[in-house]
Order: sequence, then C-alpha cells, then structure tokens
Amino acid sequence: MSDYKLIGSKSVYNGNVMDFWECDVELPDGKVAKWDLVHHSGGAAALPVDDDGNIILVRQYRLGVDRELLEIPAGKAEPGEDPLETVKREMEEEIGYVAGHIEKMMDFCPAPAYSQENTAVYLATELKKTRVNPDEDEFVTIERYSPDALKDMIRNGEIVDGKTISAVTAYLAIFFSRN
Amino acid sequence: MSDYKLIGSKSVYNGNVMDFWECDVELPDGKVAKWDLVHHSGGAAALPVDDDGNIILVRQYRLGVDRELLEIPAGKAEPGEDPLETVKREMEEEIGYVAGHIEKMMDFCPAPAYSQENTAVYLATELKKTRVNPDEDEFVTIERYSPDALKDMIRNGEIVDGKTISAVTAYLAIFFSRN
Repeated sequence: MSDYKLIGSKSVYNGNVMDFWECDVELPDGKVAKWDLVHHSGGAAALPVDDDGNIILVRQYRLGVDRELLEIPAGKAEPGEDPLETVKREMEEEIGYVAGHIEKMMDFCPAPAYSQENTAVYLATELKKTRVNPDEDEFVTIERYSPDALKDMIRNGEIVDGKTISAVTAYLAIFFSRN
Repeated sequence: MSDYKLIGSKSVYNGNVMDFWECDVELPDGKVAKWDLVHHSGGAAALPVDDDGNIILVRQYRLGVDRELLEIPAGKAEPGEDPLETVKREMEEEIGYVAGHIEKMMDFCPAPAYSQENTAVYLATELKKTRVNPDEDEFVTIERYSPDALKDMIRNGEIVDGKTISAVTAYLAIFFSRN
C-alpha cells in the first residue's frame, strides 16, 4: 500500500499566493498517472475562547464561495515562519487580541489529495485586547458566539469553513471535557 | 463588508481533476487584487459507524503530503451528481458497505479562500457488507477505530485530513449525544 511513488513534477502555473504543479505518480500496479498539486506554504489558525466561554470569529469574503464566511482567525505562514508566530500575528491582525495561554490542538490538512497546505490549529485563551490591525486587503467584522450556537450554525450550513468546523467541534469533543 | 466584487476571471491551467483560475477581485477600498482560485466540482464523504460503534476508515496515499493518510471514505462528484449518490457510490467502492440509514451532517469547504470545493458530509449507520469495488487507480486498506482512539489520533497527528477531523469530532460533539 505504500507503493505509490512521486516520480516527477513540474510547475505549470505560478499564482499570486500559491503555485500549481502537475505530478507523475507511479501507482502500485506500475501505471503512471498525472495528478494535480497545489503548492502551498501552510498556515495557522486559532480558536479564541474569551473569559465568558464564547468563541471569537471573523466574517470575511471568500473567493471560493464568492460570499462572506464566518471563520476562526487564520493566516498563511511567512516563509520559514513558526506557525505559533503566524497564529499570534493573525490573532492580533484580525481580532486584536493576544492570548495569555495558547496550545496546539492539531494539524489540519484541508485537502491532502491535491494541496500541500497544512494549518496548525491552536486553542487560545486568557485573551487580552490590543487593537485590530488588519492587513491592507483584509476587511473583516468580528463576532462572538457560544459553542452551542456554533453547533447549530454548523448543522444549518451557516458555518461551512473546514478549519472552523474542525476547531469548534474538536474543542467540544476533545478539549472542553478536560476541564 | 459585502463590498467585494469578483469582476473578472480567466482559466490559466486545465489540470487533470481540477482547473486553476486567476480572478480579479475589487476590494472594498476600490483597489483590484489578483486572487488564485481552484475550480472544483465538489464531492461527498461518509462517516460510517458500524453496529459496534466503531468508525470505518481507509488508508490511502495522498499526494499533498506524499504519504498515506487515514481518512473517511470520500470522493469527487460526477458532473451534475447529487452528493447523496456520490457518497453511496464511494462507500461501496472504497469500503464495500451500503448504509441502511444515512443523514447529512454538514457541508465542509476545505479551503474556501482559494478552492470552490464543497464536500457534503454524511453519517452512515446500519451498515451492510457488499463487496469492495475499488476504482482503477485507488489502492486502499480498510481499518476500524473506536471514537476514543480517533480522538487520540487527531491529538497526536496520526489523523490530519480535514474532512476526517471534522466528521469525527462533529459526530462526537453534535450527533453522538443525541442518542
């Protein structure tokens, strides 16, 4: 079962935030297939839980669905950047908070069949307000919801972003019950 | 905040299972930015829970991480296909089961910032064995784990696939407690 071999790859398009590659993959039966691959440097996301137990989210336009989505704060890593630094920067830029306590929840690969992206997801608590310092082309609003409200919003399709679904439900299923 | 406008797009590369587009997006401040977009027809995934309460997963090679990953059964929709049909087909092809009960859990957009992909995620129970009928270029092994084991595997990085993390933890946080 580990008999797949990546035997060749070439860049076919250089995009603005990621590149697109065509790969030759040798299958276990010896045939060679051409598979698409998105090159991506990865990123980090935070599930920020305030002192009242509410979760802080950002609402922002997303091209893939051509509408606004409600998501946890997240961003792309700078080249060589530790994801813990990425997530601290994004929390301050997107929601204007620093976390007194931050711990890794999991690694989240959104689409490993065709994308190299890996998002390190952190739980952020003991939040302290600093200021909102958005990136030049980010225009977001900040909203807070209880975990129960978010469960309903996942069920009814108001929340569809993968890393947000994972972070909220993993928090409830794995982390919340520790306390 | 809804002042983003997709004002133009062009295909820049036709891949084997998806296409890559470059889009012009007008930002709220009037500037125009070039954003990358993966065109993708979407798909469906199932969380198959057997009569003992164990979850059935498949282990298969994934190019994005260049190794095998443990994931719930899933697949790409044929053009115009209802995701419920997709998920029934993939369950039979990948794990060799039909479900007596199947219900929608959620829509999961793995990477809405740059991909149009939407995966409809279903809970599949009352499983009946048929046969494994894999696609020509799919070589998978089938494994079963308890929900508690899967929680540990998410925590320790053995499971990193986004739709799998979402389905398992949403099942535990939202669906399991209904019963």
